[in-house]
Amino acid sequence: MSELLLRSDTGAIATLTLNRPDKLNALSQAMLEAVQTQLDALAADPAIRVVILKGAGKAFCAGHDLREMTDARQAEDAGKQYFIDLFAQCSRVMVSITRLPQPVIAQVHGIATAAGCQLAATCDMTVAEEHTRFGVNGVNIGLFCSTPMVALSRNIPRKMAFEMLTTGEFIDAQKAQELGLVNRLAPADDLDAATLELAQKVASKLAATVKVGKRAFYEQLEMGLEAAYAHTGTVMAENMMFRDTAEGVSAFLEKRKPDWS
Amino acid sequence: MSELLLRSDTGAIATLTLNRPDKLNALSQAMLEAVQTQLDALAADPAIRVVILKGAGKAFCAGHDLREMTDARQAEDAGKQYFIDLFAQCSRVMVSITRLPQPVIAQVHGIATAAGCQLAATCDMTVAEEHTRFGVNGVNIGLFCSTPMVALSRNIPRKMAFEMLTTGEFIDAQKAQELGLVNRLAPADDLDAATLELAQKVASKLAATVKVGKRAFYEQLEMGLEAAYAHTGTVMAENMMFRDTAEGVSAFLEKRKPDWS
Amino acid sequence: MSELLLRSDTGAIATLTLNRPDKLNALSQAMLEAVQTQLDALAADPAIRVVILKGAGKAFCAGHDLREMTDARQAEDAGKQYFIDLFAQCSRVMVSITRLPQPVIAQVHGIATAAGCQLAATCDMTVAEEHTRFGVNGVNIGLFCSTPMVALSRNIPRKMAFEMLTTGEFIDAQKAQELGLVNRLAPADDLDAATLELAQKVASKLAATVKVGKRAFYEQLEMGLEAAYAHTGTVMAENMMFRDTAEGVSAFLEKRKPDWS
Repeated sequence: MSELLLRSDTGAIATLTLNRPDKLNALSQAMLEAVQTQLDALAADPAIRVVILKGAGKAFCAGHDLREMTDARQAEDAGKQYFIDLFAQCSRVMVSITRLPQPVIAQVHGIATAAGCQLAATCDMTVAEEHTRFGVNGVNIGLFCSTPMVALSRNIPRKMAFEMLTTGEFIDAQKAQELGLVNRLAPADDLDAATLELAQKVASKLAATVKVGKRAFYEQLEMGLEAAYAHTGTVMAENMMFRDTAEGVSAFLEKRKPDWS
Repeated sequence: MSELLLRSDTGAIATLTLNRPDKLNALSQAMLEAVQTQLDALAADPAIRVVILKGAGKAFCAGHDLREMTDARQAEDAGKQYFIDLFAQCSRVMVSITRLPQPVIAQVHGIATAAGCQLAATCDMTVAEEHTRFGVNGVNIGLFCSTPMVALSRNIPRKMAFEMLTTGEFIDAQKAQELGLVNRLAPADDLDAATLELAQKVASKLAATVKVGKRAFYEQLEMGLEAAYAHTGTVMAENMMFRDTAEGVSAFLEKRKPDWS
Repeated sequence: MSELLLRSDTGAIATLTLNRPDKLNALSQAMLEAVQTQLDALAADPAIRVVILKGAGKAFCAGHDLREMTDARQAEDAGKQYFIDLFAQCSRVMVSITRLPQPVIAQVHGIATAAGCQLAATCDMTVAEEHTRFGVNGVNIGLFCSTPMVALSRNIPRKMAFEMLTTGEFIDAQKAQELGLVNRLAPADDLDAATLELAQKVASKLAATVKVGKRAFYEQLEMGLEAAYAHTGTVMAENMMFRDTAEGVSAFLEKRKPDWS
């Protein structure tokens, strides 16, 4: 594991910490590679039920590494291939979060800007320190936040997303919660605990059930109504056949705790 | 009509009451069949302009009938075909509500959980008693609310839907309204009246107009922008040719009430 | 330019004013043609970076011109072809706003009803005087607001859109903002200034960047997640190759203002 990205596990909960605080955890190629490597490992790790993604230092994440991107302009093609590869790599990280079997919770503080805002928007849920500021402010330097808006525009009303994208203005954590970008707010002192509490709640559920549910959630969102019902109906029928689900239903009917050991 | 499901008509408004209060109006196969039968009858009933769907007793609806589902496990295939059929039947009820020519208003109180929450989310509009609690809590017994999320995720922001689905936690009626799941709140004593007022308002409109409008509403939601405009433009041009619409427009221009008798 | 529609430019900001105040700026065929002509001109005008659309007199816009529509019934086909053409023409105006390279801000006051509400919902952003009332009230005269709902249902939660469409009831500006239909509210005396401030903010950004960003914004909204990322990743890589973007990024790294003259 790269020291760029720390991983610490607490029971069934893995916490990934972006660890480049002097660069506000900018998503360099090396950082994206480290995140991808961990996501690929987590996808195959049955012991982990929930993932928390957070940042070390003053901020969650300030987006791409502009200095590295500027250096890439020295190439013969003025960086074109580098940029194509970089955005493809970044998009693969985002899609991998959505496709990960385990729910991913962003624990956000300080700022979440550009690709950092995208990262928060992409995670399945977000817990934010109450002074966090969110922005897709690439437009201020002439680089529209086009990939970040994929995640943003699927989570908040479109006129609000358009305003953030074209003005470069930030919104505070309370506004982000009203718009749908944040699930829960916490003061700085309680941020770790609030995120952990949410993670533990989800981790206490049947992992196989959460896994099929998360996958079906994103699949059905891209379907028409009838296709969505046909697909999720099949998923539920299969879910009913899990032995642990049979036990869960029986336990409920018998007013006892399920034996999911 | 089954006594599982009561129907009472007031003028052009039909009220269907789920009537299995001792089981919190659980959606057994017989209950789903009774609802489907009524929906099919209503679809062909020109005298009815609005449908209200509510529940008898302490709750609107607590979802599927877990005892019946558990009994089905005795079959040779351990219930697999029963579950496939059950979720297909339930989805058909939901799609039939969306396809019904008349608007359907859910009148919700107590709890609306799992497929009961789906039923409220599926209805075109919802009026909720102000202490109602909503949840998609199947995950607590190991059964992800995969079909309920089809309706839920099309009505509230996705991070909120994901949280409800993976934590199994309930939201109260005020939160449900903020998120878009509830149109109007009413105290218990006024719930019938508030729902009826909304129903009468809609029933006072031209039934043929509401019918083409409701159909086009859900059709265009599944289309891209240009296809949606092409389709709804045709719908409006046809709507303009209704004799009662000509009368409605003329009456407006002449500052009198339309003669739609 | 028709006197039906006024245009005044302030620097890089073009303001279009619907100028038929005695008819609450109804969208007659001539008005729609005047708007389309201006939109086509603006699309080809590199000097303009932002467009403001507002209405003269007491209201922003009250929708279609019902008297003209009623007169059209005198034709041999009772107006059928006229209505088909009218809704196609109106839809072309709406799609042209979405496809316009420049962001379009609706500056709304008084009422925005039926196709007038559609116009506000279609613009990329909306600034509303705080007493503005919004409605899709065609149902009251027997004409469902089927094309307006295309824009409305893509901007506010669907149960709220359904209620507005089937009851014909208005919502106030505060509610419109909560639902996502309005970006900013302003008292009457500050409405021009508030809109201009937003317009100037967007106009201060790099026009080429805002242009590719706006186009990609609406394109990716109609794609699945992976296609959206593939598309916007390409857009961002191309955006990085703009000379002014290179300057913008360099300026940021060097803590100076970009030279975008």
